[in-house]
Amino acid sequence: MSDARSAWFRREGLALLTDLYELTMMAGYLRHDRADRWTSFDYFFRNLPPHAGFAVTAGLEPFLDYLENLRFEADDLDYLRSLDLFEEEFLEALSGLRLAVDINAVPEGSLVYPNEPVLQVEGPVFQTQLIESALLNFLNYQTLIATKAARICLAAEGDPVIEFGLRRAHGPDGAVSGSRAAYIGGCVSSSNVLAGKTYGIPVTGTHAHSWVMSFDSELEAFRAFAEHHRGRLVLLVDTYDTIESGVPNAIKVFQELRAQGRQFRPAIRLDSGDLAKLSKIAHQMLVQAGFDDPLIVASNDLEEDLIADLKRQGAKINAWGVGTHLITSHDSPSLGGVYKLAAVREDSGWNPRIKVSSNIEKATDPGRKALVRYYDGAGRPVGDVIALAGESLPESGLIVGKSRVFTHRPLRIGEAERSEALLQPVMQGGRRVLEREAVADIRARAQSQMAALPEEFKRLRNPEIYRVGLSDAAAALKEEMIASVTP
Amino acid sequence: MSDARSAWFRREGLALLTDLYELTMMAGYLRHDRADRWTSFDYFFRNLPPHAGFAVTAGLEPFLDYLENLRFEADDLDYLRSLDLFEEEFLEALSGLRLAVDINAVPEGSLVYPNEPVLQVEGPVFQTQLIESALLNFLNYQTLIATKAARICLAAEGDPVIEFGLRRAHGPDGAVSGSRAAYIGGCVSSSNVLAGKTYGIPVTGTHAHSWVMSFDSELEAFRAFAEHHRGRLVLLVDTYDTIESGVPNAIKVFQELRAQGRQFRPAIRLDSGDLAKLSKIAHQMLVQAGFDDPLIVASNDLEEDLIADLKRQGAKINAWGVGTHLITSHDSPSLGGVYKLAAVREDSGWNPRIKVSSNIEKATDPGRKALVRYYDGAGRPVGDVIALAGESLPESGLIVGKSRVFTHRPLRIGEAERSEALLQPVMQGGRRVLEREAVADIRARAQSQMAALPEEFKRLRNPEIYRVGLSDAAAALKEEMIASVTP
Repeated sequence: MSDARSAWFRREGLALLTDLYELTMMAGYLRHDRADRWTSFDYFFRNLPPHAGFAVTAGLEPFLDYLENLRFEADDLDYLRSLDLFEEEFLEALSGLRLAVDINAVPEGSLVYPNEPVLQVEGPVFQTQLIESALLNFLNYQTLIATKAARICLAAEGDPVIEFGLRRAHGPDGAVSGSRAAYIGGCVSSSNVLAGKTYGIPVTGTHAHSWVMSFDSELEAFRAFAEHHRGRLVLLVDTYDTIESGVPNAIKVFQELRAQGRQFRPAIRLDSGDLAKLSKIAHQMLVQAGFDDPLIVASNDLEEDLIADLKRQGAKINAWGVGTHLITSHDSPSLGGVYKLAAVREDSGWNPRIKVSSNIEKATDPGRKALVRYYDGAGRPVGDVIALAGESLPESGLIVGKSRVFTHRPLRIGEAERSEALLQPVMQGGRRVLEREAVADIRARAQSQMAALPEEFKRLRNPEIYRVGLSDAAAALKEEMIASVTP
Repeated sequence: MSDARSAWFRREGLALLTDLYELTMMAGYLRHDRADRWTSFDYFFRNLPPHAGFAVTAGLEPFLDYLENLRFEADDLDYLRSLDLFEEEFLEALSGLRLAVDINAVPEGSLVYPNEPVLQVEGPVFQTQLIESALLNFLNYQTLIATKAARICLAAEGDPVIEFGLRRAHGPDGAVSGSRAAYIGGCVSSSNVLAGKTYGIPVTGTHAHSWVMSFDSELEAFRAFAEHHRGRLVLLVDTYDTIESGVPNAIKVFQELRAQGRQFRPAIRLDSGDLAKLSKIAHQMLVQAGFDDPLIVASNDLEEDLIADLKRQGAKINAWGVGTHLITSHDSPSLGGVYKLAAVREDSGWNPRIKVSSNIEKATDPGRKALVRYYDGAGRPVGDVIALAGESLPESGLIVGKSRVFTHRPLRIGEAERSEALLQPVMQGGRRVLEREAVADIRARAQSQMAALPEEFKRLRNPEIYRVGLSDAAAALKEEMIASVTP
């Protein structure tokens, strides 16, 4: 795979993409001879986006790129020196920094659930602390958008969904990274040409109202557009009046093309008005003109609920262009993924750590972990177990874990035929061990996992809650640690 | 000003940051000998973010950087060729492209209102169309965040607001560009070190819970943090129990520092729980220990309404850390700015263009424009008039315009002492004519404009609607053009 990515998309020059307090703490650890203490951190999120039954992980490959290119350059150090907050010894340590972390991760494009360790970082605290902010930045955003895309694609019931959020995305990288995540989540293409070049995502597009407005008539504009057009020809029919003018003019041009013997599937785009009604009328007009299977693309502030409602109304729409709501995850534009200390290695071995809270649900799961998914005989996932690293677990049969919150209570996971360890090594000793994955392969993983997921988890409202339990050992450790810190 | 910006923040390599349909239309214009037709486009937005009485423009400098560095490189052209959508003639035209556009813009950091031409682009349609997507991407996002920051700062009533949204921003650039916009909107600093280096924004920070957890006791952790700390010392007091443990331990350390004769202002951060109650108790404890003027920083999913409510409750908080809600503009994560054709130059001169709509409020204002702001004797803005370029307008006295929607109706702007043309040339013939502005200067402009804006426009709920009218000539042109396209 040739590398069409610019310096930015190779994630170079981002050593300072961190919160100042990470550097402050690193300097403190160094001063107190704690910089080399080996730590284990987990990345997880506590809540799914609203109404979602699952999340689709995304952002791992770009995060690994960032790690591989993490170097403090002279101008970074000059800048830090200029802040007058740090000692030279610390700046020297940054200058000589070479990443030595081990990372395990759930493969990108996997379905995951709240509180699961989606990614684990182990290494000296000087390094594990440094990368926290960037890790959260990369994984939170792309997972958010991949998940939103998956929901929109579910609402579209197999119709192609095209992402065109560039103009409303949060900056150039929000657009390109968002296109990548949207494709992983199930979109078939993007309007964003740079995303196409950078990640090999298919690019598609039609024309704007300004094209039509710049000609003396709509018919002339359509003819000019069709004349030498290559690729899929889609005419935007709502510049003046969709039914009175746009569709009749489009039909006229399609008829002319047919008379010329051009091979094409007649296609129009509706971008305003009553999409349900207009699409039905337009479909009927096209069919009456002898175009039996027209492609009718709809756009205009669409999201999953609107698409579901248009489907419910029998709208004759078979492709969906989605921009703003997808690229910003408009109804919930952040994923609250966090990065929490799970264990510290002492001379005596790993010591688990817990962060308790007045809210018992927010207590972290202590210790170095494994994450196991169980499947039934038909290959459908039945639930997951968060276990301790190295713990031996049943591979099949009736799987019963413990509740994450009420750790003494059993939680029935289900009857399993097989199990799968989800966390895979992706970096060892600061070196990437995961071979670079093409975005299309990551997308295929998400598609196949979504196909295997039972319907009840894929509802757009009130989805069934996927079962995630603790193993007996993980539950016992958590119970013991909470008891020890709660007087 | 030394250029600490990486290739990315110089906005290099973004020629393909465009929607495919822009390229498709450009190829069409070229084929139909229309590529060189001179066009005038306006950037404007139709609606302010919810509850906002004004918007703060941001994103102009980065947009100009993008334009200055806009070149199609060989690998861009190779990629486009690989799509098999374009003729060689078109790719050659891209390869030789040198920007020749003229751009006028309202200075960055200005207050603007719906439907105002915030930025105008004039040039050959081959170029004005190309840059649409990137223009909208840059300006929409940064204006959105600067506006959100301004509202949050209004709620904080002069207390410092610190932006720390990096971990929830939409990718690395969403974070850095967002920090820039938040600073322009009124934040005093950011936690984002790369934003500090790139744009000279002050950076600040405290420490995380993990610092406290990695020591055997909170007191030991605080002592270690304070020992060699430079800059403002802020202790995070809610790792275990704010009142029982965190604040008493902080006070102990502050007393030790005082005994050592260290100069400092005692400062704590509250990041969870009942911020109103905890801040009052903590404040009292600090005062009783002889620390009369403690800095109490609050954080935890704050936004303008929460801050206003904490103020209402008399919370003893005097600095605010705001992350997720600010950097994503969580309640409304997109600004719907658009870019519309206003006029086309023919042999006979400029011909205005209008985009009508079944919704009369969405009809665009046709023609090349000027934007004029009127001020009263105290230097307060009284309202704006959208006029036609070159039109002569009164400079003072009772200013009466016309309604944008009901163009025959007069709209009283108010009594004015002076007027100001808001659109300034920033690029001519593809060359930047605006001298690069430091972000601190842009921020100062926003601060001074907000100070001059009467209170009624700055309310957090139901602000007064700022008056924006059309000039007589602009209204007459719009009325005539709507009549001519509406049978």
